[in-house]
Amino acid sequence: MPAASTAGPPGAAEFPFSVHAVAGAARAGVFTTPHGAVPTPAFMAVGTLATVKTLDPQDLRAIGASMILANTYHLHLRPGEDVVRALGGLHRFMHWDGPILTDSGGFQVFSLETMRRVSEDGVEFRSHVDGSRRFFTPERVIEIQRDLGADVVMQLDHVIPGQSDLAQARDASERSVRWLARCQTAWDAHRAAQDGATPQALFPIVQGGTHTELRREMADRIRAMSNWPGYAIGGLSVGESKDDMHAVLDVANDALPRDRPRYLMGVGFPDDLVEGVRRGIDLFDCVAPTRMGRTGTAFTNYGRVNVRNARWRIDPRPLDPDCTCSTCRRFSRAYIRHLFVSDEVLGLRLLSLHNVHFLVSLMRAAQGAIAGGNFDGWSREWLGRYHSGSATAP
Amino acid sequence: MPAASTAGPPGAAEFPFSVHAVAGAARAGVFTTPHGAVPTPAFMAVGTLATVKTLDPQDLRAIGASMILANTYHLHLRPGEDVVRALGGLHRFMHWDGPILTDSGGFQVFSLETMRRVSEDGVEFRSHVDGSRRFFTPERVIEIQRDLGADVVMQLDHVIPGQSDLAQARDASERSVRWLARCQTAWDAHRAAQDGATPQALFPIVQGGTHTELRREMADRIRAMSNWPGYAIGGLSVGESKDDMHAVLDVANDALPRDRPRYLMGVGFPDDLVEGVRRGIDLFDCVAPTRMGRTGTAFTNYGRVNVRNARWRIDPRPLDPDCTCSTCRRFSRAYIRHLFVSDEVLGLRLLSLHNVHFLVSLMRAAQGAIAGGNFDGWSREWLGRYHSGSATAP
Repeated sequence: MPAASTAGPPGAAEFPFSVHAVAGAARAGVFTTPHGAVPTPAFMAVGTLATVKTLDPQDLRAIGASMILANTYHLHLRPGEDVVRALGGLHRFMHWDGPILTDSGGFQVFSLETMRRVSEDGVEFRSHVDGSRRFFTPERVIEIQRDLGADVVMQLDHVIPGQSDLAQARDASERSVRWLARCQTAWDAHRAAQDGATPQALFPIVQGGTHTELRREMADRIRAMSNWPGYAIGGLSVGESKDDMHAVLDVANDALPRDRPRYLMGVGFPDDLVEGVRRGIDLFDCVAPTRMGRTGTAFTNYGRVNVRNARWRIDPRPLDPDCTCSTCRRFSRAYIRHLFVSDEVLGLRLLSLHNVHFLVSLMRAAQGAIAGGNFDGWSREWLGRYHSGSATAP
Repeated sequence: MPAASTAGPPGAAEFPFSVHAVAGAARAGVFTTPHGAVPTPAFMAVGTLATVKTLDPQDLRAIGASMILANTYHLHLRPGEDVVRALGGLHRFMHWDGPILTDSGGFQVFSLETMRRVSEDGVEFRSHVDGSRRFFTPERVIEIQRDLGADVVMQLDHVIPGQSDLAQARDASERSVRWLARCQTAWDAHRAAQDGATPQALFPIVQGGTHTELRREMADRIRAMSNWPGYAIGGLSVGESKDDMHAVLDVANDALPRDRPRYLMGVGFPDDLVEGVRRGIDLFDCVAPTRMGRTGTAFTNYGRVNVRNARWRIDPRPLDPDCTCSTCRRFSRAYIRHLFVSDEVLGLRLLSLHNVHFLVSLMRAAQGAIAGGNFDGWSREWLGRYHSGSATAP
């Protein structure tokens, strides 16, 4: 493995990561940011437009969420990073004083169905809100994320479809590494110019599709550039098989430094989280818990529950008998079904709250199992119950 | 005035009302129910379908709401009173352990644009949900409200358009009084059959349109029937002038007993509340604060604020500088505008919370002014500021 280069670490000093227990590849640790500590492994709820959809910051606190995510692409379009900056940055704007991570917008731009054009300079696209023409460069997304003021910011990367062949994947991955270098330069310049501002950490993104040797090569090249405060793994959970995803995670676990957090982007189904932790992942994010919460599906320890199902009409039980969230402590399946059948907004929040609580608690349970020395058994048992669950037990 | 009859009071003993201060016609008191005390004058938030739209029961507690309302018509259709009863009644179903009032469905049925047919027996109508044919009688709405289990239940009344002539108003008002007698008989039978069940209070509704002498006559006839635990005034705020409304309230103040709470149904704009309190009203309900909260209008002490207005784009101020609600303590106009412009669900809740808090607090301020001996000055000053307000001060 290449040694870390002598380039200044982009935030590593202010963002220490300590591992206090391991179980195979799994680790329990603490990632520290200027806005507080993040016990890992951790799930980050997604607050696309500076709000975790339907939830109040108080809900996130009560759930025990430590770090959340917001989307640069969406916030750039609405309300604009100038507004967020004028209001004191994301933390003050959305009244969340815990750690925040912003993505770079790469994933959103490359997911747009409207026009986009990639060049070495950056990516041109049309706003999905008003059709206006926009241009993201590595430098520009660092500038926007500086204005937003999150604790962790992400490089601009060239995201490709999950089934891309090796040539496509190599082209995009190498461009992502070149863009990373430009992000680092821009980040260093901002840092020098704004001495005294709240420190931010810049995370690189390892790409490479499902091509494990390409993934390893990119990880090595990125490590050689700097001693990064953390490493993201992008381009997964986009249609590839579970085996392919796990193979990439195994390579990443082998290739990335053990003393820095690893962030698996856009992955957030309960079983994917547990499988990811087994392979050395520390941070996850996904819209799944809030999106499914808004469409009427609950995560439970016994599988998924469709809350609109007529069988819950007079069911007095909570969504999950093992759950301690404020939804399950207070409300029956019958009431939550009623809210959804009647299109009541409260239902969206109660179910989103439950689902985010579910993933946050699942990661807390994983932390405990790793620290307690029984993670392998715990994770196998949990996965077995989840996959075989009927959602009606007990 | 007629003396109270010797018929058994429908719940008066279990629902005492004490007045501890008066200021002209205005009174400050306490209406006591099996689920707690209601300091009056009070605004009741409307939880149509067993949820005050967008709000959590915890929000209502934090706001200081004492009593809330739910709609018999809506709950009968969804989820059905059998479901609510099977789940332990409204309080347990919606996790609100404070006082609840259910209306009789009369207002909703007579507001339907679909077919309805009134006979002496009751009113036939089609469900707005599935078009099914339904029939409400005085006895049936008492039975439904018994199953729902609210603290205060309402008689079925014949509601007519606000501009009805005297003949129409007399016909409907007299039918309402006959229906009241049938409600009382049904209520007595339920009470005898369900000894030990949570007591409920039955409120009559004084109708009579804008015809003040008819209103007085109906109030007298209703008083002659029983020593009711409280009296509702229906059929106002349906298109009549403010002067007409105030004239009816003056008559009601004169005709109704001073030792029982008066409930002005469906009235809930801030100035209407203050004008109502000045004329002896103790209880109000209205969907206005939550409906306006969902459509982007905030009540403030300086008039109404349209939160989508572009002038708030980078405005760091709260909606109302004098407000102590959790929305105003935490969020800027800029953030709330952003949520509405971006169609974020959190915006609906933050604004509904502010608006309900506004009315609950306004009634608390009125209580204090009455008790403090300065209600006349306070109410005049408040009305003046509200009506002249620019919504931008200070």
